[in-house]
Amino acid sequence: MTATRSKKPAAPKPRGEAFVRVVAEATLERLADQGFERLTIPDVAQLAGVNKTSIYRRWPDKEALVREALAGVMKHTEVVPDTGSLRGDLLALARTMADATQTRAGKAIFRIALAEGDHALLRALAARSQPRAAVFGPAAVMQRAMARGELKAGVEPTLILFTLAGAILHRVFVEQSEVTDDHLAQLIDLVLLGAQARR
Amino acid sequence: MTATRSKKPAAPKPRGEAFVRVVAEATLERLADQGFERLTIPDVAQLAGVNKTSIYRRWPDKEALVREALAGVMKHTEVVPDTGSLRGDLLALARTMADATQTRAGKAIFRIALAEGDHALLRALAARSQPRAAVFGPAAVMQRAMARGELKAGVEPTLILFTLAGAILHRVFVEQSEVTDDHLAQLIDLVLLGAQARR
Repeated sequence: MTATRSKKPAAPKPRGEAFVRVVAEATLERLADQGFERLTIPDVAQLAGVNKTSIYRRWPDKEALVREALAGVMKHTEVVPDTGSLRGDLLALARTMADATQTRAGKAIFRIALAEGDHALLRALAARSQPRAAVFGPAAVMQRAMARGELKAGVEPTLILFTLAGAILHRVFVEQSEVTDDHLAQLIDLVLLGAQARR
Repeated sequence: MTATRSKKPAAPKPRGEAFVRVVAEATLERLADQGFERLTIPDVAQLAGVNKTSIYRRWPDKEALVREALAGVMKHTEVVPDTGSLRGDLLALARTMADATQTRAGKAIFRIALAEGDHALLRALAARSQPRAAVFGPAAVMQRAMARGELKAGVEPTLILFTLAGAILHRVFVEQSEVTDDHLAQLIDLVLLGAQARR
């Protein structure tokens, strides 16, 4: 992506936005591989090909660094599908969630969330997203579904979203299976239509 | 064993089954706190109050030690409820799963599963449980539900179980919220009855 890791003498150190981007990338890579506890700023600096003092100049500690790297990633997950039906929108949202578990950034976030538990970083990220479900951009999806009369009365929209998210996490991290489109369709039909035979 | 004397008469070192139990407990405690990678046999020995050489005599390496500690725990999760209805059985299974996330052993397992990803230990445990869903003892539950005609044709029983498990993991580890009986009832009604309004 950039030439900053080249050892050729002419390679300039990245500055400005490019600097922030390569440092954030390196931070996410280390988070995904090792988690928060084992991440160090000198290590991130080495991976990014920048001076560690440049990092310390911008971010006072690794928590600030990680917070900014993760916040940058969260923005891209706030895309809201609008396919005209709840089923179509949920398929699109679920595909986005499933794809996110396969990215470096997604792995970093899930690793912190799942492995390091009650983490100040995650609480800070959650506080940025009110309602919390907005992390996945789904609040609008559920509002439109309610406006179209697609949702059964008394069913909590966040329960639907968190159930889908949990099922995807289970598929990826516990079953260690691929999240195919066919699997997502079955999952969404389960949540929308239910499993119980009608008699 | 040796002539070494402390001020108080030395507490006898545990032997036999007691030895296996205290070592397994200490192993699970360290796993829950620190994960597999950072666990060491000397550290487990210290926590258990046994000699590390006694541990090495029984288990050649930490993988063998952890495998036995986890296998001992898995046995207790294979209880199969039989309340007479799918909803009742799923409530009981889900309660067991949710409670397991709160135990030291459960946290240890989830920590390895979720944080350390594609782990030989988990593959070994999964291979012990065929079908894999038997980890939660639910195969019999689903078979009885099918025999009673409670399940819609074409719905995969493991999808139901894994969706419930994932939703519970999401609740505990991502939302960091309590899994109340009321929450479980809503979750199970969602999966059994679906979220979509009938028109």
